[in-house]
Amino acid sequence: MHAYRTHNCAQLRESHVGDTVRLSGWVHRKRDHGGVLFIDLRDHYGITQIVADEDSEALGLLDSLKSESVITIDGVVKARSQETRNANLPTGDIEVFAKSATVQSMAEELPLPVAGEQEYPEDIRLKYRFVDLRRERVHANIMLRNRVITSLRKRMIDQGFSEFQTPILGASSPEGARDYLVPSRLHPGRFYALPQAPQMFKQLLMVAGFDRYFQIAPCFRDEDLRADRSPEFYQLDFEMSFVTQEDVFQAIEPVLAGVFEEFSGGKSVTPAGEFPRIPYAEAMLKYGSDKPDLRNPIIITDVTHHFEKSGFGIFEKIVGGGGIVRAIPAPNTNEKSRKFFDEMNDWARREGYSGLGYVTRKGGEFGGPIAKNHGPEEMAKLYDELGLGENDGLFFAAGKPKEVEKLAGAARTRVGEQLELIEQGCFKFCWIVDFPMFEYDEELKRVDFSHNPFSMPQGEMEALETQDPLDIKAWQYDIVCNGYELSSGAIRNHRPDIMYKAFEVAGYSKADVEENFGGMLEAFKLGAPPHGGSAPGIDRIVMLLADEPNIREVIAFPMNQRAQDLMMGAPSIVSPKQLRELSIRTVEQPKPDSPEATRVDRAGDA
Amino acid sequence: MHAYRTHNCAQLRESHVGDTVRLSGWVHRKRDHGGVLFIDLRDHYGITQIVADEDSEALGLLDSLKSESVITIDGVVKARSQETRNANLPTGDIEVFAKSATVQSMAEELPLPVAGEQEYPEDIRLKYRFVDLRRERVHANIMLRNRVITSLRKRMIDQGFSEFQTPILGASSPEGARDYLVPSRLHPGRFYALPQAPQMFKQLLMVAGFDRYFQIAPCFRDEDLRADRSPEFYQLDFEMSFVTQEDVFQAIEPVLAGVFEEFSGGKSVTPAGEFPRIPYAEAMLKYGSDKPDLRNPIIITDVTHHFEKSGFGIFEKIVGGGGIVRAIPAPNTNEKSRKFFDEMNDWARREGYSGLGYVTRKGGEFGGPIAKNHGPEEMAKLYDELGLGENDGLFFAAGKPKEVEKLAGAARTRVGEQLELIEQGCFKFCWIVDFPMFEYDEELKRVDFSHNPFSMPQGEMEALETQDPLDIKAWQYDIVCNGYELSSGAIRNHRPDIMYKAFEVAGYSKADVEENFGGMLEAFKLGAPPHGGSAPGIDRIVMLLADEPNIREVIAFPMNQRAQDLMMGAPSIVSPKQLRELSIRTVEQPKPDSPEATRVDRAGDA
Repeated sequence: MHAYRTHNCAQLRESHVGDTVRLSGWVHRKRDHGGVLFIDLRDHYGITQIVADEDSEALGLLDSLKSESVITIDGVVKARSQETRNANLPTGDIEVFAKSATVQSMAEELPLPVAGEQEYPEDIRLKYRFVDLRRERVHANIMLRNRVITSLRKRMIDQGFSEFQTPILGASSPEGARDYLVPSRLHPGRFYALPQAPQMFKQLLMVAGFDRYFQIAPCFRDEDLRADRSPEFYQLDFEMSFVTQEDVFQAIEPVLAGVFEEFSGGKSVTPAGEFPRIPYAEAMLKYGSDKPDLRNPIIITDVTHHFEKSGFGIFEKIVGGGGIVRAIPAPNTNEKSRKFFDEMNDWARREGYSGLGYVTRKGGEFGGPIAKNHGPEEMAKLYDELGLGENDGLFFAAGKPKEVEKLAGAARTRVGEQLELIEQGCFKFCWIVDFPMFEYDEELKRVDFSHNPFSMPQGEMEALETQDPLDIKAWQYDIVCNGYELSSGAIRNHRPDIMYKAFEVAGYSKADVEENFGGMLEAFKLGAPPHGGSAPGIDRIVMLLADEPNIREVIAFPMNQRAQDLMMGAPSIVSPKQLRELSIRTVEQPKPDSPEATRVDRAGDA
Repeated sequence: MHAYRTHNCAQLRESHVGDTVRLSGWVHRKRDHGGVLFIDLRDHYGITQIVADEDSEALGLLDSLKSESVITIDGVVKARSQETRNANLPTGDIEVFAKSATVQSMAEELPLPVAGEQEYPEDIRLKYRFVDLRRERVHANIMLRNRVITSLRKRMIDQGFSEFQTPILGASSPEGARDYLVPSRLHPGRFYALPQAPQMFKQLLMVAGFDRYFQIAPCFRDEDLRADRSPEFYQLDFEMSFVTQEDVFQAIEPVLAGVFEEFSGGKSVTPAGEFPRIPYAEAMLKYGSDKPDLRNPIIITDVTHHFEKSGFGIFEKIVGGGGIVRAIPAPNTNEKSRKFFDEMNDWARREGYSGLGYVTRKGGEFGGPIAKNHGPEEMAKLYDELGLGENDGLFFAAGKPKEVEKLAGAARTRVGEQLELIEQGCFKFCWIVDFPMFEYDEELKRVDFSHNPFSMPQGEMEALETQDPLDIKAWQYDIVCNGYELSSGAIRNHRPDIMYKAFEVAGYSKADVEENFGGMLEAFKLGAPPHGGSAPGIDRIVMLLADEPNIREVIAFPMNQRAQDLMMGAPSIVSPKQLRELSIRTVEQPKPDSPEATRVDRAGDA
């Protein structure tokens, strides 16, 4: 017989009744029913009920154990009586009568309980993460993460991609967010940097001729943290050669739709091949956002023209001054009180906007100050134009274009939430496409890149030479799910001549380009294929699938929001010898930190 | 038609003759046969021959291109004439007659050629790695690496393991090699460390109840580099709960044997379930090494007893003084001249040993000074004992035990190589087991741990309490292939009581243990399962399979031997602002380094 188990804790069924078995696991719950002891024995796979009474020599030992002790049970499988069967447990038809027990590990008093799902302060959970991870929900989240990543890998390989490891000790880059630096011992005064993303390397793999790259890539950003950010995070980094934007979509839609279908638990998912492609300008108009939540049925409409010569003072004035007016429907709000509408206006003011106008409508009758001023005929005309009904309210955002766009988008979300219009039980994907290549920078009073200078402009050299820069779109795209941007991506500009020209349009000289991006240019001058890709965020995907708002719930060993590992005591004080070897000095004396950090520091001095 | 290709460069066959196709790729080779131009067009998948003559409007353009330019060809598939077919190329029966061509990327003069496999200086290869990676052998090595890792993953998952990501920003540890450190911005004066291995985390995953963990884990060591070392490297890190040593072997043998069989290219591989288990003491005796190359048939024998009262002065004296004598056969050396034997002795002296005695034998007749002194009868007796034949020579290593063991092992290797006895075309695996838990430290004059203090002693507490410490073995094991250690591993000591006791035997107090290993002890006091694992080196596995002696040949973007990335210019000088934010100062001014590092540094200042 095996030293620890003949079966795991999820395996035994009625067909095993009478078998002599050995099980090992943690004492999950213990109940004493007057001389009869029940133990829920838990392992990674499940739970099996152990029973011992005075006929069992194990009774005394089992009775003495604290929860979470690890034990091995030798016993016999018995059928449970009909009334004690547990249909919620795969092993619920049986129990194991313990003949003897061995303690593998005696647990002391627990800092947080494992059985039950009560909330616990995050610092305790993270300090004792190895206990926290035993809890059902966290355990399930981490296993979901593992399965999602395994599935992503399989799907990418099925699409003809190969996985490459790119360096983690890399070069610091002037672009992007703040780097984590690593002092070099062999080259005093110099530093490596941890990658914010393997962007350069994946493009160089294409230049090297490897056609379809992917990597479940660890990325690092030394930024201030939020609930959905971690200093290290993972992305499904990929890049393809000899492709158009459409090829990228066709390659990745089946991967994302497939993995969401596999793990959505029955929620509907936009099918592969049917992800809507929404031009950036349309997204900003209809949803007031470049990451629209398509579960929200509300569509914003521009009604500027309606108010041009409307005689409605405030809006006419705004429009006359170059402003715009956008309308956000609030369907079926005839039962809503005035308070609902006023509070929306208050909210807009709290958010720093000038306010949100509105019209109410109940059984065809308009209400509120705008309707009063504008008159029922004009209102009815507008309602016809917008296709609204006789019980639909309407909000207005009016003012400067950029501000209105933003307010309308936020109002759309808020109205959708308050009216409970957000469709539940679905994952709605879309692509945002046709991002503008350039924008007019009001402060600098000149044209600049609007997003990524390294994307290929649509129309390539000809567009740069003949079109108004502000009309040129880029081969750049975002993938959005339920209002979250999973990733941006692009067809890259692989042509030095087009890159020089694009930078020239944005006011940079050839020398500027060569000084800052000489490495990539040099690579592109030695034979580069057209290529493009993207990098959906894996933590975000798992958060969506696990329905968790906090990234730390889907990472096995996360740092806290102050970028500390409370369990291992990182970051910690290191020895003077270590700093000497690296030719660096610390400027500030470290402050005494949390107790656990101090504890591990002491180990560092030994 | 697709913008870039209807087929890749490995797809077209005779069945496509007459089809209009579009191909994209790199100009691999160009040959001008008087008005007829042949181009080998290369992509990731293969090579297709393009032909153009004066009937083709593409001729002029194609003729003007430098090698490694990237082009798209529109053309028609034609059958090659019988005499020009190339059986070595999957597309060798056809060629594509180019009707038109588009340049996607014009290549300038190359720093190193792609076609052909000539050697090139490593610094040029690494600086232009994106060109070097196009070369057939390097390209094949990297794809082999990808496939090996994919296969390892699949095999681990098939064995019931799940993959977890453990933190890369971790805590510095007093154990092991030198850490790479990462200064913390939010906690001035404190540092993260990159993991030398996820040892603590994988054990904590077991304590957290996750049963079977694995990870293709990036690991980091700031050590001086050699051909087989890289600052970052990968290991197949794994750990299992509720297992004995035998369970670990049964889980991993199919994975290793399977992946070697899959990629060995026909070489034979020790079958799973048949890896020999060689006790450490036996390995040191028979092979003079704890990583024996079992392809070498030579077996060392201890012949100390033979010389105890042999009357053979030198050896008798050595044995009398507590020394030992080991015999290394040199089979079928009757044709070897005296020089062969003398040079072996010279080699041993060069290596710092006192020398290697020998006996020659030709047709039964002994030769050499030892045989002369010892006499033919005694020699014949010894030969009988060792089962040697009438044409076998014999080397002797004599002296202090440790030194002799080492010399005998080295001589075994050298004799095997010189006599070409190493079996080719095979991968021979074995486990080295039963490592001693403790050893006597001659300098400190006390018992200390011999390998890993955290392995479980065989016999557990009882052994520690009742046995001579020097007799206690550990549940610790190395996996060895063709003389290379792929990994060590162990069943861990998960019991605080046994850990305190083991450290006590080695002279450490309970307080010492708690001060240095408090974190792990605390975890083990809250319910820990018995567990164990190992971590075979992935770069080493790929090196063996690719038959490459240098780790840099199996890494896509390796650093050079001075830990520099010559392509990206890492490590580099960073901005004073970056250092200020991290609250550190550099002690030494950085030296100007290679030109490419300087180039990227300038970008860092922009």
